Amino acid sequence: MEANGLGPQGFPELKNDTFLRAAWGEETDYTPVWCMRQAGRYLPEFRETRAAQDFFSTCRSPEACCELTLQQPVSCFLQPLRRFPLDAAIIFSDILVVPQALGMEVTMVPGKGPSFPEPLREEQDLERLRDPAVVASELGYVFQAITLTRQRLAGRVPLIGFAGAPWTLMTYMVEGGGSSTMAQAKRWLYQRPQASHQLLRILTDALVPYLVGQVAAGAQALQLFESHAGHLGPQLFNKFALPYIRDVAKRVKARLREAGLAPVPMIIFAKDGHFALEELSQAGYEVVGLDWTVAPKKARECVGKTVTLQGNLDPCALYASEEEIGQLVKQMLDDFGPQRYIANLGHGLYPDMDPEHVGAFVDAVHKHSRLLRQN
Amino acid sequence: MEANGLGPQGFPELKNDTFLRAAWGEETDYTPVWCMRQAGRYLPEFRETRAAQDFFSTCRSPEACCELTLQQPVSCFLQPLRRFPLDAAIIFSDILVVPQALGMEVTMVPGKGPSFPEPLREEQDLERLRDPAVVASELGYVFQAITLTRQRLAGRVPLIGFAGAPWTLMTYMVEGGGSSTMAQAKRWLYQRPQASHQLLRILTDALVPYLVGQVAAGAQALQLFESHAGHLGPQLFNKFALPYIRDVAKRVKARLREAGLAPVPMIIFAKDGHFALEELSQAGYEVVGLDWTVAPKKARECVGKTVTLQGNLDPCALYASEEEIGQLVKQMLDDFGPQRYIANLGHGLYPDMDPEHVGAFVDAVHKHSRLLRQN
Repeated sequence: MEANGLGPQGFPELKNDTFLRAAWGEETDYTPVWCMRQAGRYLPEFRETRAAQDFFSTCRSPEACCELTLQQPVSCFLQPLRRFPLDAAIIFSDILVVPQALGMEVTMVPGKGPSFPEPLREEQDLERLRDPAVVASELGYVFQAITLTRQRLAGRVPLIGFAGAPWTLMTYMVEGGGSSTMAQAKRWLYQRPQASHQLLRILTDALVPYLVGQVAAGAQALQLFESHAGHLGPQLFNKFALPYIRDVAKRVKARLREAGLAPVPMIIFAKDGHFALEELSQAGYEVVGLDWTVAPKKARECVGKTVTLQGNLDPCALYASEEEIGQLVKQMLDDFGPQRYIANLGHGLYPDMDPEHVGAFVDAVHKHSRLLRQN
Repeated sequence: MEANGLGPQGFPELKNDTFLRAAWGEETDYTPVWCMRQAGRYLPEFRETRAAQDFFSTCRSPEACCELTLQQPVSCFLQPLRRFPLDAAIIFSDILVVPQALGMEVTMVPGKGPSFPEPLREEQDLERLRDPAVVASELGYVFQAITLTRQRLAGRVPLIGFAGAPWTLMTYMVEGGGSSTMAQAKRWLYQRPQASHQLLRILTDALVPYLVGQVAAGAQALQLFESHAGHLGPQLFNKFALPYIRDVAKRVKARLREAGLAPVPMIIFAKDGHFALEELSQAGYEVVGLDWTVAPKKARECVGKTVTLQGNLDPCALYASEEEIGQLVKQMLDDFGPQRYIANLGHGLYPDMDPEHVGAFVDAVHKHSRLLRQN
């Protein structure tokens, strides 16, 4: 700590580094916890802001993003009420800002989700995309939001930046929205493998400077969301997802070194990617996120001891009573063991979830993980 | 074979028993193959009939179901053109006829899928359901369709009957349609475990006589579809899905014995149920179906040698060229090995798939599986 209370880059010094220590594989006094989509629609504060109405304009406002990030349960630090002592904040944003920065129009249709009026239909549609090298300059608003939020967090907990992985972004760009089968995007993989690789390379080239820019702006960890891994079997995943996931980690780390920036831990979360856990644990990420369909002990057997695991309570478990949440958390912590582990849900929070139950989840992790270390 | 060319129950004698032999774990000369949803919307004949317009009325017409079943690629046997020599037919019907028979209204909304105008919202809604003992008598139209189809198949290939597993039927009845999270149905499991078990028991009680009735009517194998297994993690699956899956097999087999009916092989297909493969292989089914996210060799290691495996080509692989389909089939067959295996897709066919490519898949299975046995 410097004399003025500011850490490197002029940011307030970090007071709670439990999440970062666990991510780096260091010992911790208790299990750190955060929740995917913790700054999302389940919070009344979120629903009352314009984020619910005009989603992507909100994403473009650093002040609004900062406000929403701090309205996550970490705001308990700003309030007398100590309700949700989460161990990390994640910047309020969306994975689809990258396709937008590449020149595609994306709107958020309330009650339906994201929609691309002009998805990629033909190979030549790739020519419509902007040079990936300009993406980072298009996304200055995210960097500003990160810097502002890191300042206002005042070192209470670390701030996580994130992006969607190439395959997941490709599915949205080709499907034009959600899909239960991703059949259009998978049709590209089978019928246009070269164009698919071209698109995935463009996305990778865009993601690397974008993620490096987030770290330069103040992000202290990075999570890559491969949300649509489950639509690919082992073969397609190894061909069209894994190489780009690896490439992102490798190039982000190299660029951080070149820029003289301190390294940050990187998390890969491939939802429904049970078949690729071993490969993901060797893909250059310090942390592997798990969805709730993977049993903790099996995951640890599969990945060995070289990575930290993150997850994986069924989000719907938050519908249970606070007592049952406590029991489910205890079982989960017993199964993952006390170290090299970050507690989280196995997917994002749903809009209809009770914030009190998120609090019960967080408290149960903290309480039981301390007990676990006493035994 | 009796003197009149009719087998037991007066049905024409079976000429191709390869599918049944593989299901029972007996040696076969080649790998039998069929496709989930092989009588579905990808066939022009299907789209031209009223099935596309008035789905459940079609389900209620034995003559229409028979016609659609025979218009599956097995119809090649009726035509000079030998295009799709599939080794089994599956009766045209839908898993949601069971909730209908229990008294729930279900409509098929074109382009959207099934819709329940009055889904189960409260525990007392269970009182709206009919006695499960009457379900089989409500579903006489399915039995008639099976008998008619078995007659008209003339013993060319065996006829498979099917039903949805209790948890999967429950998701539709509670959600009122499709859902990406099944959060309403899972909310029941966490908040109303007793009512959930009550509903699952009602469904099991309905399914047992329904499946036995299908066999009495002429079905020569049965498949249970647990299509929504993936929404449950290992814990919920073991509590709310597996016990009922086991119970269905056990009670169907006992009732067939009691009725003096010959046993039929039973197939369990739990989509996205990678975490439960070992348990499913010990659940009383002769065959375990696999989706395309499970690597064949890992599946075999997991389940041992006591069951036949069925699957699991990525349905989207049928978008590939016929040459590539051949290569993918070769790899799949090499990985599964020549015996105790039934080739299939890892999920149903999609409506936009080219029937010619289904033919390429079937031919590749037959061709390569014979080569495999020569080596």
